[in-house]
Amino acid sequence: MKYQHKVQYYETDKMAIVHHSNYVRWMEEARVFFLEQVGAPFEKIEEMGILCPVLEVSCKYLNMVRFGETVTIDVRLSEFSGVKMYVVYDMYKADGTLCCTAESRHCFMKDGKVLNLKRKYPEVYQKFFEDPENFVDK
Amino acid sequence: MKYQHKVQYYETDKMAIVHHSNYVRWMEEARVFFLEQVGAPFEKIEEMGILCPVLEVSCKYLNMVRFGETVTIDVRLSEFSGVKMYVVYDMYKADGTLCCTAESRHCFMKDGKVLNLKRKYPEVYQKFFEDPENFVDK
Amino acid sequence: MKYQHKVQYYETDKMAIVHHSNYVRWMEEARVFFLEQVGAPFEKIEEMGILCPVLEVSCKYLNMVRFGETVTIDVRLSEFSGVKMYVVYDMYKADGTLCCTAESRHCFMKDGKVLNLKRKYPEVYQKFFEDPENFVDK
Amino acid sequence: MKYQHKVQYYETDKMAIVHHSNYVRWMEEARVFFLEQVGAPFEKIEEMGILCPVLEVSCKYLNMVRFGETVTIDVRLSEFSGVKMYVVYDMYKADGTLCCTAESRHCFMKDGKVLNLKRKYPEVYQKFFEDPENFVDK
Repeated sequence: MKYQHKVQYYETDKMAIVHHSNYVRWMEEARVFFLEQVGAPFEKIEEMGILCPVLEVSCKYLNMVRFGETVTIDVRLSEFSGVKMYVVYDMYKADGTLCCTAESRHCFMKDGKVLNLKRKYPEVYQKFFEDPENFVDK
Repeated sequence: MKYQHKVQYYETDKMAIVHHSNYVRWMEEARVFFLEQVGAPFEKIEEMGILCPVLEVSCKYLNMVRFGETVTIDVRLSEFSGVKMYVVYDMYKADGTLCCTAESRHCFMKDGKVLNLKRKYPEVYQKFFEDPENFVDK
Repeated sequence: MKYQHKVQYYETDKMAIVHHSNYVRWMEEARVFFLEQVGAPFEKIEEMGILCPVLEVSCKYLNMVRFGETVTIDVRLSEFSGVKMYVVYDMYKADGTLCCTAESRHCFMKDGKVLNLKRKYPEVYQKFFEDPENFVDK
Repeated sequence: MKYQHKVQYYETDKMAIVHHSNYVRWMEEARVFFLEQVGAPFEKIEEMGILCPVLEVSCKYLNMVRFGETVTIDVRLSEFSGVKMYVVYDMYKADGTLCCTAESRHCFMKDGKVLNLKRKYPEVYQKFFEDPENFVDK
């Protein structure tokens, strides 16, 4: 699934490129968009009392991005068991250059305990499988 | 009361100066410090169910600040009635240059309603007056 | 001119509303969009060696905004002499509620000196007047 | 080497915990502090025309951190060849709980090319070895 982010002036730093911490925020933007498109929007998940904390995050910065550029983020799942969810992000500049690859790892929680989405909310769990493009090819 | 903030790399922008939005965050840092010193720390206020929302904010940027500099923020009250609280901030560079003057306006709220701190929590209200230096000279 | 911003999760704070510092960033987003639409995009202005620093900023927060909401920012000029530029922003929630009114004040600079855009770059200066809707009614 | 960061209100999100993107910023704060203590402050490095870009970043979030807490970041090098620099960060809450482990990977660059600090600036390179505590035990 493809999400687009336009680079803002306030995201640059004194090297005149995007500050590396912002990519972690763009990952969140892309993830929120992904869940919305899948039919399990974050707002609705939170209303159900489910949290989806970030357990791990990693980024490889391959090419610099500058103010005014639009970055396309290809967001997919590399793992989704209903207990854990691994999301991968490939970020491209307008000319097709890969500028960042990233991953975030999550679980689902409810009432302070790890939640098995597959068992407790199968109707939410199923939505992720409606489009095979939601997953990284293996 | 004087609060110090060291400028971080991630606070700079492509003009190689501090991005102007960060001063609003430094105002919050200084305000939190101020309330702590006064004896009414924000964490404790929030535990009492009291919110202190920001109603207005304004900044005048007088001199640019750069990465690595330490800014001293002189924070005082210009108005404090127990219903409203106006906070003023004078920010100085290490060489004494005034780099920003700012103001934020707040009220106190509880259970979704405006709270009169003077009437409901006189013991908290009184703390602000223990040191006349907490107020701007008039 | 109307610019839209979708509220991101990372823009919220522990009061579960948008942190007030983000509105200053949205003002910049709207201003960049405005200059682009006018035909004087910021990237091009900077390439000409012109800077457009922020001299003052002020916000009045009227209604809280939450994660997932889309804010529409009506951005116009209240003053534009070629030496100074005052920008006003009216921010609305999807239901039409006014949530924030704001203003930013700017000048133009080149080679460390204040620049008279009208005199030095009349072709850029003129672009702002092509659409009367760029200005606040007086 | 130990660096301390006090959690700010603007660093929290609607889960009432620190937003995960901020840890990447704290890593930068700790790294800047580390280089300063080592005797190779970032400002000075940049003045020499040397850049130290972030190539990779990764974080494991182990325990939530809240507003008002002070996080102690133990920052050390896991690899330092003069061409590449790997920095590791162990973050602790005041009660000693490990809340985050992280790593960032960097190289040195000058005039757009990768720089061998050991060969070109041996006097800077050497500074890192003055204190064996700068390195992770192997």
